[in-house]
Amino acid sequence: MDNHQQDLFTTTVLKNWELTLKRISAVFDRNSDEELLQPIAPGKNRAVYLLGHLVAIHDGMLPLLGFGDRQHPHLDALFVTNPDNTRTPLPAMQELRNSWTSINALLTERLSQLRPEEWLEKHTAVSSEDFAREPHRNRLNIVLSRTGHVSYHYGQLALLKK
Amino acid sequence: MDNHQQDLFTTTVLKNWELTLKRISAVFDRNSDEELLQPIAPGKNRAVYLLGHLVAIHDGMLPLLGFGDRQHPHLDALFVTNPDNTRTPLPAMQELRNSWTSINALLTERLSQLRPEEWLEKHTAVSSEDFAREPHRNRLNIVLSRTGHVSYHYGQLALLKK
Repeated sequence: MDNHQQDLFTTTVLKNWELTLKRISAVFDRNSDEELLQPIAPGKNRAVYLLGHLVAIHDGMLPLLGFGDRQHPHLDALFVTNPDNTRTPLPAMQELRNSWTSINALLTERLSQLRPEEWLEKHTAVSSEDFAREPHRNRLNIVLSRTGHVSYHYGQLALLKK
Repeated sequence: MDNHQQDLFTTTVLKNWELTLKRISAVFDRNSDEELLQPIAPGKNRAVYLLGHLVAIHDGMLPLLGFGDRQHPHLDALFVTNPDNTRTPLPAMQELRNSWTSINALLTERLSQLRPEEWLEKHTAVSSEDFAREPHRNRLNIVLSRTGHVSYHYGQLALLKK
């Protein structure tokens, strides 16, 4: 592949990441704060839990991709390590909405600046020894798996009435 | 990127595709035929509809990727163009299970034989003129979007009891 083709590879991956984010963000945008407090199905997670969960997981991509420190580590206790429950006070909905927009803008900007070979560098949660054996544990793999994670929860949010 | 790096790019994409298929297939495998006849949530699609839907969509990848004719075009009327309903007779569950396994084995085999530059060739549903303007409408894009489609429904199937 020439340089143009290498760029096309990463551009295609990045466009898929952006399209996936655009689709799920439209669900958050068209549902009111009150509607996001509804569960996606009886007895299942509330939509707001999925929003907070996605912010926390994407925030965790910053150090994983070598883009810097986390900005919202406090969200893990609310949205990752503990299941959804209606007793724990949550951050303001607008704060979660804003964090979702800003963390994705930051990740997308940093990803768009990576050269093709930098997509293939190891992510920070794999040791050099393991990476030598498993060279697919790279930045590209993180982006692909997190894009899939967004789609997973997008499918669940699609069960909401609108 | 050297040749090794180019191969690593496509290998990473292919591993993500395979992992995503492995996860959703485990849901189909651990649920009995009877359990797959249950809806994923009250009033929503039955799991069997999602299984048939995914077989039909992946079958459609064969011509789209230039891998040959469709094998199961009759599934579209049951699982794509019409919504789920309990009145229409379905194919035998074992037939759907077998088709799911075999279509994915075929797609994965053919994808693993593509050279890196072949991943960037246009898919068959885009014209040469459009492709000149939108070069990301390539085979890679099809595989990324279909992988996301699997994750979308995997998230819904995760709402089943097991």
